[in-house]
Amino acid sequence: MNGVNAKDVAKLAGVSQSTVSRVFFGGVSVSEKTRKKVLAAAEELGYSPNEFARSLITNKTKIIGLVMKGVNNPFYPQVLKEFTTHFKRLGYSIIFVHTNNDEIQKEDIEMLLNYNVAGVIITDALLSLKVSEDFKKNKIPLVLFNRKAKEQDFFSVGTNNLEASRQIADYLIKKGCSDMVYISGERNTSTSIEREKGFSEVLKKHQLTYKRFESDYSYEGGYQTAKEIIQKGDISSAFFVANDIMALGVLDALRERSIEVPLRTKVVGFDNIDMAGWPNYNLTTWEQPITKLVEETVKYVISEIKEYTGMTGNIEVQGRLIERKTT
Amino acid sequence: MNGVNAKDVAKLAGVSQSTVSRVFFGGVSVSEKTRKKVLAAAEELGYSPNEFARSLITNKTKIIGLVMKGVNNPFYPQVLKEFTTHFKRLGYSIIFVHTNNDEIQKEDIEMLLNYNVAGVIITDALLSLKVSEDFKKNKIPLVLFNRKAKEQDFFSVGTNNLEASRQIADYLIKKGCSDMVYISGERNTSTSIEREKGFSEVLKKHQLTYKRFESDYSYEGGYQTAKEIIQKGDISSAFFVANDIMALGVLDALRERSIEVPLRTKVVGFDNIDMAGWPNYNLTTWEQPITKLVEETVKYVISEIKEYTGMTGNIEVQGRLIERKTT
Repeated sequence: MNGVNAKDVAKLAGVSQSTVSRVFFGGVSVSEKTRKKVLAAAEELGYSPNEFARSLITNKTKIIGLVMKGVNNPFYPQVLKEFTTHFKRLGYSIIFVHTNNDEIQKEDIEMLLNYNVAGVIITDALLSLKVSEDFKKNKIPLVLFNRKAKEQDFFSVGTNNLEASRQIADYLIKKGCSDMVYISGERNTSTSIEREKGFSEVLKKHQLTYKRFESDYSYEGGYQTAKEIIQKGDISSAFFVANDIMALGVLDALRERSIEVPLRTKVVGFDNIDMAGWPNYNLTTWEQPITKLVEETVKYVISEIKEYTGMTGNIEVQGRLIERKTT
Repeated sequence: MNGVNAKDVAKLAGVSQSTVSRVFFGGVSVSEKTRKKVLAAAEELGYSPNEFARSLITNKTKIIGLVMKGVNNPFYPQVLKEFTTHFKRLGYSIIFVHTNNDEIQKEDIEMLLNYNVAGVIITDALLSLKVSEDFKKNKIPLVLFNRKAKEQDFFSVGTNNLEASRQIADYLIKKGCSDMVYISGERNTSTSIEREKGFSEVLKKHQLTYKRFESDYSYEGGYQTAKEIIQKGDISSAFFVANDIMALGVLDALRERSIEVPLRTKVVGFDNIDMAGWPNYNLTTWEQPITKLVEETVKYVISEIKEYTGMTGNIEVQGRLIERKTT
């Protein structure tokens, strides 16, 4: 596709054009000597008839697998967009895998292995240790994005959730809040656990308690959870909600019952999705620096593609509090 | 990955395992007779060492290219999810292409051709006739999704926008609205043109006029456009807004100035994204039946993969009015 064609390769290799075709696409057999000549010429000219043939020569593809669950949360389409843009600049394409389940399905893993992807990024889905072994065996770098695993066998990139939630707790205490609510996403997600941990640490230090409600990182979940809390008639002075899309549901539930924000109660979210800044919500939140998170992930993947080390570990990017009108 | 390995193929073909490897991955030459034996055995057993090698045998891949621009509009992530789910059931994967520009970039087209994709779906981006020729030449089926081209050389799937906007106009007239505003997306999009056409036809029939404002299919665009209209102090009795995400911006701008909806003015959107149903917006809108639209698209692509006809044409699915609290 770069202007070089089989004819040019044939000329340089001193063979016929049909020989070039046979080397790349099979057909009548070609001697090993001829094959090597053709491949050398093709490499010199930068000829690659298509990515599949190329991958047979180099044993590498230019495809990154991106696994995502929560496309209804605007945070993730934004993440998808950033990954696509960053990888495109480096000549890589994205195979998009959507999973309805919390855990990635076996068939998705097999598909990614079948395509011999150069790397895999997993956002809001779970991956068993056993499955990750398949990627390791094939020296395919893998990153957990915005998630951490309990095991130390992964590389993950995320926001410093502990630090963020400590600062949110400090901020709310300074605002005079003493009885608070924490609304988590799914209990088994590292983000929900860490965000609660930092929050509770600081509250404990100030000898404050809080109530904990489990929800599911969706608008509907936040809305329903807040409705139940309101029905009990026991409105705390602040809600720390583990992501923005749930926080918007909380705000709508409070508005429905004319509970004034920030006068009667305050609400803080997490992510800083576009909608948090809409005048109708004006949500105070913790900004996850998506571009920086994506850059760190891409840097790791590319470096592991160049030379696979199987390095595990954890990169944590600092975010910042965005103060708006709900506090 | 299906449990069949090179050993099984070697046994059936009566050759050594390294011969099987050479057939699929090159190396020392293999006679044409041996090659055929191995391929026959591989086919019989359903052996495919990876998708790339498979594509060299069948000259087909199981990849669909999906081109998308507006991931900030929740309608499109929903579309992406549906396509991924539907194609996965049929064994196809999605290469996701994000374009920042209105028109698809040459490098994206080349990438899709390089990967020898089985089909291409283009959502909210433009495609030149010249570029579409590249797909035609390679017998790669192509669908414009939720868009139409002026030229007759494409296959497109969308909602019946003319019928929808006629019904919206009828509905608003029945509600007693006589002076109306139409807020379009980008002027050159088929959806904006068609939705205005049906709307204006019915208004003309009733000897009513309307004002037309051009926006950009984004929340911010809808919000700003409505603010400008409000500043002129000339509030019409109804807004027909060409998509939901803009309509939410319109609602927020109206709320900011305490202009009561639906008492003082009414608002109708288009798409029925999740947020249109949120209690805080409760937007009357036209539902685009995403699942049906996706099913029709998949049906066409799969049939053209099986036997390429290059058929052009246009499938229009009926949507329905979802009446909520903004009218």
